[in-house]
This record gives sequence, structure tokens and C-alpha cells, in this order.
Amino acid sequence: MTLDLTAGVTAARGFSAAGVAAGLKRTGAKDLALVVNGGPRHQAAGLFTSNRVFAAPVAWSRQAVKDGRLVAVALNSGGANACTGPAGWEDAAQTARLVAQGLACPEADVAVCSTGLIGQRLDMAAVALGVGLALKALAPSGGADAAHAIMTTDTKTKQAAHRDPAGWTIGGMAKGAGMLAPGLATMLVVLTTDADIESNELRLALWAATSVSFDRADSDGCMSTNDSVLLLASGASGTRPDLDDFSDALTAVCVSLARQLIADAEGAEHEITIQVSGAASEEDAVEVARAVARSNLFKCAIAGADPNWGRVLAAVGTTQAAFDPDLIDVAFNGVEVFRQGTPGADRSQVDLTGRQVQVDIDLHAGRHQGVVWTNDLTHGYVSENADYSS
Amino acid sequence: MTLDLTAGVTAARGFSAAGVAAGLKRTGAKDLALVVNGGPRHQAAGLFTSNRVFAAPVAWSRQAVKDGRLVAVALNSGGANACTGPAGWEDAAQTARLVAQGLACPEADVAVCSTGLIGQRLDMAAVALGVGLALKALAPSGGADAAHAIMTTDTKTKQAAHRDPAGWTIGGMAKGAGMLAPGLATMLVVLTTDADIESNELRLALWAATSVSFDRADSDGCMSTNDSVLLLASGASGTRPDLDDFSDALTAVCVSLARQLIADAEGAEHEITIQVSGAASEEDAVEVARAVARSNLFKCAIAGADPNWGRVLAAVGTTQAAFDPDLIDVAFNGVEVFRQGTPGADRSQVDLTGRQVQVDIDLHAGRHQGVVWTNDLTHGYVSENADYSS
Repeated sequence: MTLDLTAGVTAARGFSAAGVAAGLKRTGAKDLALVVNGGPRHQAAGLFTSNRVFAAPVAWSRQAVKDGRLVAVALNSGGANACTGPAGWEDAAQTARLVAQGLACPEADVAVCSTGLIGQRLDMAAVALGVGLALKALAPSGGADAAHAIMTTDTKTKQAAHRDPAGWTIGGMAKGAGMLAPGLATMLVVLTTDADIESNELRLALWAATSVSFDRADSDGCMSTNDSVLLLASGASGTRPDLDDFSDALTAVCVSLARQLIADAEGAEHEITIQVSGAASEEDAVEVARAVARSNLFKCAIAGADPNWGRVLAAVGTTQAAFDPDLIDVAFNGVEVFRQGTPGADRSQVDLTGRQVQVDIDLHAGRHQGVVWTNDLTHGYVSENADYSS
Repeated sequence: MTLDLTAGVTAARGFSAAGVAAGLKRTGAKDLALVVNGGPRHQAAGLFTSNRVFAAPVAWSRQAVKDGRLVAVALNSGGANACTGPAGWEDAAQTARLVAQGLACPEADVAVCSTGLIGQRLDMAAVALGVGLALKALAPSGGADAAHAIMTTDTKTKQAAHRDPAGWTIGGMAKGAGMLAPGLATMLVVLTTDADIESNELRLALWAATSVSFDRADSDGCMSTNDSVLLLASGASGTRPDLDDFSDALTAVCVSLARQLIADAEGAEHEITIQVSGAASEEDAVEVARAVARSNLFKCAIAGADPNWGRVLAAVGTTQAAFDPDLIDVAFNGVEVFRQGTPGADRSQVDLTGRQVQVDIDLHAGRHQGVVWTNDLTHGYVSENADYSS
């Protein structure tokens, strides 16, 4: 499936967006985004962090999307509005209210997303100013500005769109530079479509898409307080999609955005694909891949271009997956360095100087497979997260 | 309890030890240690890594200690003998046989421990030479040499001893600079006592001691293929200990060694104590403490002397422990930065320039508590683990 990586939340008909500088970021960079569904329909679905310590905007948006209907999403960088108590909840509600007034819609149809430092109140004067500016700037060409306005330690915007031959489109934007960026949180994703589709169908497709995309991207094992993925459908194409096609396209857009997040993760010098095959179940495959993706020693080895398969096996051994250690194969970039439980090709044959690293693990325990994407653990990661002044 | 940190495996009567240079390390440093129990009794207990990918010496020693009897422990650095297949098992057996021949004891009474790079065969000519040298060098004063010979990336030896007024002594040595050191593995511990005590009593005391010491030290979340903790009792004091006193003393020695490991962990610039109180159970307390100890973002923040309590809460929220986010308190070095679910004292009041960091988390969910020791994630850690050439 060929995606357009230059188009995002306004690729689909019926949507307008804006990204403005509200003054939440001291740098003066864009920090407030608005995505508005102009209809005719306003179907929606959302998925949120499973962290039990979740931010006020997550609590607000979870409630707002519950009825399967959203008109707009307001997003800010420059503050996560997490761990801010009852006052933080009031700030999230107030943000929704300001947008709702401008759009003449119920406040319960406005979702709110925040990203930035945990534990600080938002400057609500800046938010009010920003909402006003964004309402004025709303445009069908505003997707790129919105994608800019949600960046924190991201160095690039993340956008992707699929235009289906059947006449409907899915587009989206994402931000995040690690599961939880420096003092900053986190992964925010807004997806839009002009397909004519019901909210319960959106919910199923979104669950299916995220479970093999954002849920498979693991930068640093840290789960955020603010993760939000929202999907809005305008019906403006007038086309009812084939549901399997829609689900496939949504998955492709989400996989693209997830991989763009990993590629731009804090300090990343290598993008690592961990592919587990021969597993007794898909759960086993993902558990094994995730254990390797979370091994700091493995991630440091890749930073040093060292095909240290011992660290891969040590991580595999911590899982509950079905396998016999004497049957496992491990390959780095196609070179099988461990075969049937004993050392294989010499590690000097592995070239890890490129940015893309593929680790293949065959458990020889079944027919299932799974993939997790991660990145290496570098001096850059430590610098961004140790030297960031909170 | 006051411990002697200059005495180790030969502090207790009946034990002799040696540490020699066998040529396994290219540097010419000591790399083979031998600890021998001269009796009159030879009671023993052992605990090993729960990693399902475990090294040949772990398999050998697990079997050797099963009958509660050991005469000697041979330990080498310079090679983990892990993931080496059937040939690796034969190397471990051969090491035990060489020692057994020299001591005229059954090979099944000799435990073997290895640490170093995973996936390479040991140079058995060097091991044979080293065993010969060690047998000759065995002395009641050899504890320090043995502690030296098991070091890998450790910068210091780790020893501790308790001399009980009742007439018996417990001493021990440890190595490890991270759960799994660079391409190198791992934590090895040998404990000795001259108390007159049975192997089943040793087993219970060892389990109790390790569960609140080595099991609570979490440097980088990485589980080794070679972790081994062995406890040998000679009965040479002729004194049967009070079992509670013995258990307490063994725990104190193990806690000291565990904290010495964390203090010397790779790249560590801060030693962090995470104390969770107000938990509904001890398991909850340890789960919460461990989640924080494994957060790379938290560990990077401490490296940067940043009291980033948002990262603590984000980690707490990933656990299944009983708590209400609105009731949690978090303090850094005694300064309560988060109180009852809202920001507390300003973080500028926290001084993290010292090496010791205490994080107190009160869940207000019960009366139980638990502690985990960890260290920060620094440039030094990345350097040691990325730049190490395998």
C-alpha cells in the first residue's frame, strides 16, 4: 500500500486544522493544534494509555468519545496537564469549552490532548489565546501546521495518508519521541477519514490497527500518562468503505506513523526491527520480541554496532514463551550468528553500520510470528533525558 | 549489625581460597578462583538464575548442590560458558573433575561458576593451568585473591563478614557490575560459614536472605544467564547457631554485598534507594519499587540530578499494585515533591548532587513496605555497553 507521507489530518474531505503559537512553549514555536470535523457526520473512536496514572485530558477525552461522537480535537504541547489534581481536570474542561463555544457545538464533542512536562498547570491565558488563533486559522490545508504544533522533542512531523481507489481517504498525524519523552509526555495520534462509517466500526478497526502498530513500537519501555489515539470520520466522501479494506488501510497508516515515531526517537541512531517467528502463538512471539526490545544491554550493543547475540538470548530466556534453548536461531541483518543452540556464523560477518537493523529470532516452537520495532540506547538518549532541566 | 568489609570467603574457619591468573583474561589479571571447604562438615545450598537460557556451569552446579553437599567452588572470569552447547557442558564438567582430582573428592561435590562473554568456549588449557596454580596457592588468607579473580567490569572487590558473639562466622564475596555486564555475565556470590548447620537449614536461610538482598538489587533490569549464589558450611566452629540469628546475619552479609554491587554498577554516579511504604502487601511494595527502578527515564533524570517525580508516577501507574493516584506521596531525599495527588514542595528544594538518593513513595493503601536498590543510567553505562568490543 503506497502512502502519502506529506499529507495528514486534512487529507480526508470534511476536515480542517490549524497549528498556532499560543505561548505555552518558551521558544515561541507552535504549541496548539486544532482538528475539526466539518461533517456531515461526526463518528469517532479513541484509545488511551493503560497507565493508571493518567492525565486530566485523557480522563476528559475518554468520556467525550464514549458516545462515538466528536466534532473537534484540541491538542497542546508545552505541558502534559498530568498529576495536576482537580485543577488540571478543570483546565482540560475549560479548553474543551473554549473550542465548543467557537464551533457552536457541545463541549462533550471536543476531545483534548496534552503533551509536555508532567506536574505543571497549563497557562490557561495562553491556551485561550491559542484556541482563538486556531479557530481563526482553521483551513483544509492546515494539517501540516497542526502536526508541527504537537511536537515536543520530535525533530520531524509525522504524517501519513492513504487515498483509496474506492473514493475514501484516511490520514493522520502523530507525535512522540520515546514512549515518554524527557519530562515530557508522550504519544498523541489523530486520524481522520471521510469514509461513511459508524463509530462501532471505527472502534473495531482502530483496535485492530493499534494492536499491530503503536502497541508494537517500544522505544524505551516507558509507558506514558497521556497516550491518546483518536479517529474521526466525516462521511464527506459519501462512500461506505469495504470494512476489511478500511481496516487494512488504517493499519497501514498507523504502522507508518509508528515507525516514523521510532525513527525519530530520542537519540536513536539505529531503527531496529525484531522479528520473531516459529512461535507457538502470536502472544509468545510478541512477548519474546518485546523482551529483547526492552533489554538495555542489547540496545547499547546495537548503538555500538555490536551484533551481541548473547544479550538477545539472555532476554529471550526471561520470557514465558514456549521454546527449547537448544533449537533457537538468531540472525542479525540476515547473518545467522546462533543456530540450533550453538554459535553460528562469526559476528565479524555482520554489518551494523547502517541505520536499519533486522534481528530475526526463530523459536522453532510453532507457526506464529510477531514483530516489535525499537531503537538503540545511545549517548543521545541519556543526554536528552538527563540534561533536560525540569 | 557491624560487618567487616575487608574479610570474605575465608573469614570462617575451615575454608581456604585462592585467586590466580590462568590466562583467560587477555590482560593477565587474576581470572580463576577456588574456594575449598576443609570441613569437618560439607553442608551446602545454592540458588541460581531463573533465566531459561542458563549457562553450562549453572546446569552443572545446580545438580552438584542438589544433595546439600559441596567441597569446593571453582570460579572463572574471562568467559561465561553460556550458549556453548554440549561442548560447554563438557568444559564445565572437566573443570569440576580437575578440581576433584586435586582435592581427592567426588567431582559431584565441586560447583563451577563462570562469568564473561556469552557464546565463547573456555580455553580449557588455561583453565587446567589455573586450577593447578589455585590448588597450590590455597590458603586460609586467600579470600581477597579469590574476590579479585572473579571481577569483570567490577572496579572493586566485594566482601563482607559477620563474626557472631556465639562463636560462628559468616563471610562472602560477590562480583557483578549490572545484572548482566557488557557482553559479560554476571552476579556470582560465594558465602561460607563455620557454623554447624544442616543443608536444609542453609537452604531456608539462603532463600530468605537473597529474597531481600540480591533479589532487590536491580541495576539495569537485565537478567543474567549465569547468576549463582552458593553457601558452604564447614561446622569448624563446633557451634550450632540459633537459626534466627544465623538467618539475620546471613541477610545482613547479603544486603551488604548487594549494595556493594549496585554502588559499583556500570557507569553508576548515583546509588538510589527506592522505599515504598503504605502498600497493601509486600509484593505490591516491591512491584512498585521495581517499576520505578526499571524506568530508563527516571534513571536518566537522576543522572542529571533532576528530581523528576512525574517519571516516578508514570512508572507507578504501570503496576497492578493497590493505590489511588490521588493519595500518593513522593519524596526525594526527604523533600515531599508530590503530596496527595498534587504537586508539593518545589523541586528546586531537592539536592541530588550527592551520590546517595532516597526516593520515598507512600501509596496510602496499607501497612506494608519494600525497598529496591538501583543506580542511575549514565553516559558511562552506554559507553561500557556500546563501546565494548565483543
